[in-house]
Amino acid sequence: MVDTAGMTPEDLVEIELIKRLKYRYLRGLDQKDWTAVESCFTEDATAAYSGGKYAFESRAEILDFLTRSMGAETFLSSHRCHHPEIDLTSATTAVGTWALEDVVIDTTWDITIRGAAFYTDEYVKEEGVWQIRTTGYKRSYEEIQPRGAVPGLKLTASWWATDGRSMLDA
Amino acid sequence: MVDTAGMTPEDLVEIELIKRLKYRYLRGLDQKDWTAVESCFTEDATAAYSGGKYAFESRAEILDFLTRSMGAETFLSSHRCHHPEIDLTSATTAVGTWALEDVVIDTTWDITIRGAAFYTDEYVKEEGVWQIRTTGYKRSYEEIQPRGAVPGLKLTASWWATDGRSMLDA
Amino acid sequence: MVDTAGMTPEDLVEIELIKRLKYRYLRGLDQKDWTAVESCFTEDATAAYSGGKYAFESRAEILDFLTRSMGAETFLSSHRCHHPEIDLTSATTAVGTWALEDVVIDTTWDITIRGAAFYTDEYVKEEGVWQIRTTGYKRSYEEIQPRGAVPGLKLTASWWATDGRSMLDA
Repeated sequence: MVDTAGMTPEDLVEIELIKRLKYRYLRGLDQKDWTAVESCFTEDATAAYSGGKYAFESRAEILDFLTRSMGAETFLSSHRCHHPEIDLTSATTAVGTWALEDVVIDTTWDITIRGAAFYTDEYVKEEGVWQIRTTGYKRSYEEIQPRGAVPGLKLTASWWATDGRSMLDA
Repeated sequence: MVDTAGMTPEDLVEIELIKRLKYRYLRGLDQKDWTAVESCFTEDATAAYSGGKYAFESRAEILDFLTRSMGAETFLSSHRCHHPEIDLTSATTAVGTWALEDVVIDTTWDITIRGAAFYTDEYVKEEGVWQIRTTGYKRSYEEIQPRGAVPGLKLTASWWATDGRSMLDA
Repeated sequence: MVDTAGMTPEDLVEIELIKRLKYRYLRGLDQKDWTAVESCFTEDATAAYSGGKYAFESRAEILDFLTRSMGAETFLSSHRCHHPEIDLTSATTAVGTWALEDVVIDTTWDITIRGAAFYTDEYVKEEGVWQIRTTGYKRSYEEIQPRGAVPGLKLTASWWATDGRSMLDA
């Protein structure tokens, strides 16, 4: 555990910028804004998602994985990261832990996947900009559900199919 | 994208106050504290919820909608906003993006509604107090489920019906 | 409501440290790191979980309850706290409100429990370290679901059973 006793207001600015980096990454995922996602990683970034099941050795590999697995507009996702515990380890490096909750609804396969996990990240600041150098998470749990198993379960909005507008009767 | 490179500790105070405003608004919704909700908006506030499906041109219209649609004590909700990306655009104005997840259990209609969305807000500071001037969200997804479709699914606590206490066997 | 008009960047450091305390507590719960959980409480801490249904008068009692109810590795949980509204009431005391969402999957009993609540906490700083002196929450809602009621619902990862790795086909 890094000592936080000497934390200063100026440190908080760096921590806020790192939080913003993570939020931009997650928003990029769920809005399929791959240019935004790409901008969050260093070129030599590595990732180990899902306890290392999906492991990658460069930004190009990470982007290839994300766009292939999440690119379809029938893949609707909510990746939310909570509980940032970010420690500055130098003026230009930091480590962070986050608590993830994610939901995926895939209308092509008619499934819902829900899960929770803890992320461990390393960040680096280059030319004044924080980026992710390593990232990865280990799951607390994950579950899959065939959507047809719940009679009457119905999708009523989609960012792409309904332009984000509910089709529920008001 | 607003340039965050010049962010200062003093800016963080304003950003924290805007986060507090949003949290008070959301707590007001889920606790049905409509006085708290009303205090979060300027009189001329506008809203465009659910991709613009529910659009309003004043605080009075917004409050009328919220109290009519969420007022009943059989309407149990959890509105949670995450990933604040708040940019100060002047000493008294700001814009913000948030990632919403919401759950509604309505025991009158025996339904659950779950969804995710991205909020876009504008804030204004008047007489030292931040308020919401425009708000709205676009859904990543939304789904509805008849609660009777899952045999054995049972509500075991409610803010109003059980005073927030679980009826589960310990 | 505490007046936040005089909030300073130095106050934000204390608030960040209190958030970190809460995140450590919650991470400890979900990772079953009871040493970490214990370190979050003063010795005379009191708790009133679930609208007071589970009430305790010391750290030892709290730890006994948590380890007995959540200790099994077939009890998979995600406790997430959002919307921190933290007010410093002196240099060494603070109060806070949080919005909880929690999910429990218990594979021994084949149930899922989901809920939302609002936490009210009191914090105290002793020898430079913030700890929880009182904590408790009141539920907006809670529900229980027999997992067998949804045909095809399947657990695909667990922190303990799969080392946090998904067993889903890629």
